[in-house]
Amino acid sequence: MAHEEQVTLRTKALEYHERMPAGKVAVVPTKPCSTAVELSLAYTPGVAYPCLEIEKDADKAYNYTAKGNLIGVISNGTAVLGLGDIGPLAGKPVMEGKGVLFKRFADIDVFDLEVAEKDPQKFVDIVSALEPTFGGINLEDIKAPECFFIERELIKKMNIPVFHDDQHGTSLITAAALLNALELVHKEVGQSKIVFSGAGAAAIACAKLLQEIGIQRKNIFMFDSEGLITTARLDSLNEYKKEFAQENESTLAEVLVGADVFIGVSKGNILTPELLKGMARKPIIFAMANPNPEITYDEAKRAVPDAIIATGRSDYPNQVNNVLGFPFIFRGALDVRASRITLNMKLAAVKALAALAHEPVPQEVVEAYGTSFEFGPDYIIPKPFDPRVLYHVAPAIAKAAMEDGVARKKIDLARYRKSLQTMAQNLAEGKF
Amino acid sequence: MAHEEQVTLRTKALEYHERMPAGKVAVVPTKPCSTAVELSLAYTPGVAYPCLEIEKDADKAYNYTAKGNLIGVISNGTAVLGLGDIGPLAGKPVMEGKGVLFKRFADIDVFDLEVAEKDPQKFVDIVSALEPTFGGINLEDIKAPECFFIERELIKKMNIPVFHDDQHGTSLITAAALLNALELVHKEVGQSKIVFSGAGAAAIACAKLLQEIGIQRKNIFMFDSEGLITTARLDSLNEYKKEFAQENESTLAEVLVGADVFIGVSKGNILTPELLKGMARKPIIFAMANPNPEITYDEAKRAVPDAIIATGRSDYPNQVNNVLGFPFIFRGALDVRASRITLNMKLAAVKALAALAHEPVPQEVVEAYGTSFEFGPDYIIPKPFDPRVLYHVAPAIAKAAMEDGVARKKIDLARYRKSLQTMAQNLAEGKF
Repeated sequence: MAHEEQVTLRTKALEYHERMPAGKVAVVPTKPCSTAVELSLAYTPGVAYPCLEIEKDADKAYNYTAKGNLIGVISNGTAVLGLGDIGPLAGKPVMEGKGVLFKRFADIDVFDLEVAEKDPQKFVDIVSALEPTFGGINLEDIKAPECFFIERELIKKMNIPVFHDDQHGTSLITAAALLNALELVHKEVGQSKIVFSGAGAAAIACAKLLQEIGIQRKNIFMFDSEGLITTARLDSLNEYKKEFAQENESTLAEVLVGADVFIGVSKGNILTPELLKGMARKPIIFAMANPNPEITYDEAKRAVPDAIIATGRSDYPNQVNNVLGFPFIFRGALDVRASRITLNMKLAAVKALAALAHEPVPQEVVEAYGTSFEFGPDYIIPKPFDPRVLYHVAPAIAKAAMEDGVARKKIDLARYRKSLQTMAQNLAEGKF
Repeated sequence: MAHEEQVTLRTKALEYHERMPAGKVAVVPTKPCSTAVELSLAYTPGVAYPCLEIEKDADKAYNYTAKGNLIGVISNGTAVLGLGDIGPLAGKPVMEGKGVLFKRFADIDVFDLEVAEKDPQKFVDIVSALEPTFGGINLEDIKAPECFFIERELIKKMNIPVFHDDQHGTSLITAAALLNALELVHKEVGQSKIVFSGAGAAAIACAKLLQEIGIQRKNIFMFDSEGLITTARLDSLNEYKKEFAQENESTLAEVLVGADVFIGVSKGNILTPELLKGMARKPIIFAMANPNPEITYDEAKRAVPDAIIATGRSDYPNQVNNVLGFPFIFRGALDVRASRITLNMKLAAVKALAALAHEPVPQEVVEAYGTSFEFGPDYIIPKPFDPRVLYHVAPAIAKAAMEDGVARKKIDLARYRKSLQTMAQNLAEGKF
């Protein structure tokens, strides 16, 4: 962004957040509560009856409370956006914003919780104790490698879905985009050579998921701030990076020679056009650092005109945006009361997203973006404001959850999809 | 309640809670968030700017997030209503209901958190770690004596107000009602003999606060399920009850002879009309067990026609209802960003409530209740739906906070009171 644009954005963003009421979320009653009679139902003495029903049958909490539509967006503020460890309080605008996105895209209610606790085990103890409150937990902006331990332990301890979006959100969308990109350039998933710049939460999760869609581990080359992750460095690597250690040392320039895919989840402007020129024909370049990609779309395109390029930015083609994932994954998981998010559920989301990009784009999306899209190098994933994503991805998640036996509620998928079409329409019109 | 009424209430309450969307609360965006431009302010890239401002100056969280109007209603479900230890999940309808009351009476947003943790120290660790999230903490339905330790430790650790409503809510309203009742029967506070039935959270807090308004400790007689609390029982009493140990053993019947005040915060129907007849002239009888008082209003009135009687019930005069306290105490505390709730703030609430009952009742209250009220034995405290309580109590709290030096923000009280009058009107019309 140019300096002037940044100043304007800053002014607008601060004004937006400060306008009364301060912040971005409010909690409102969903039932009438004006009169004494109404309050005698909402509170004492009437409220005792749903309490007693839930005491007898815990599942009734989904009937009588907001739990079934309520996600905790929980962070300790140790890795907020690209800003780093700015702490939980300074991270609050992001967590509130995440709540806004959950509501805007999937009508899910969010309590954003900013937790002053860096110790992973203590953080786990805090979040797991909150299980009665929520229908699911979206972990957010927690630094690696602690985030891996935290998510793993919480999944073990809790009977509601726990999902660290910085890992899986990014990895799901990337995997969907990559499947489509490889299809377009007619390359085999199993033969493709992938180079990662970055070895944090998103990179590790992404590299793991890519193996599930057919990428071979030996073809994954991962760079952290010290260089290529190799067996020579095993002593100083955390257990998550170790999995991706290569035998031979190499520079980024060397590894990129003949590589089919570059996946950047690191820092802005670390890639030169020269480096890209050694890649295989029709390379796939996902430069997803925020707000500045590893190399700009324009530079990459100039260097390798037949490349397929994706970034995290909305002002260029192929925006890899987590909002294509988390709202719908949780929508589907909540609606079947899934106890966890399984690998098959994640893969179902990948496939649904990849498939949707092949379909003709409806008029409302054309209008929202002022232009049309067709499956091809500049449209490998759906657009964030495409209302179809809700009713394509959420049912796929619900279906996979039922197939995997983690759904505590069985639903009719055709009817479900239809209800989501109505929801999508309401959300597009700003009706929550 | 007659059995038939209970069945009807149960049916209505379950239907009320189950109607879609299930439960009673939703979280909504307060700023526009439909378009890509709006979302670029609510979330990345714009959201980074308020984050950076808060990182530089923590107080800016009150400008750029919802923290300043957000209370955590937090419970471990160990003492829910009169239902006992039904657990955090079964207590969720109550906590959501509390959120509804906060919104309805003071336009305060609430995240209700149900925490599966009975260990007091661990509970303290969990709640204190949530400080960045909230502007204040309302502890709810936590059993005694653990609640005393929990509140005390949290007040020590946290720089936002922490208030256990089961203790202080009840005690504040009771103290206000008692001051007015004693005035009506022309008795000296310092000479009055008080008998407590119950020695839990509300009783202990009440007995402590009554001393602050002039009741003498030697004149307080407290009964728990084992009988009168006496020095002979010191070995088996918790530290909170010990404070109220009397020298001589006595039965409830014996102690009630000549007593000026009975305060029941125990169980329904434990008091016979005969017992009341031995009390001093014009006795004050606060039978506040829920849903059934220690003795019904009608029975007490028949036994002692010149008694002043209060209960927790809305269908008889003088309802002692916590909703007269917590919404306004937190409203005032939040609006001056108080770091804690001091004794003077509590006493300010007591005085404001007591004073308001002396004032003529406005037409809207007459209409809401279908009858008029005038200061006297059947109207010693304001009615819960009196909109004036908001702009009488909250400014008194704010003023006391500023005087005590715990207010991090100074406000103009006249202007504040005026803004609350507008808020009260909006709330009465169902506008949040």
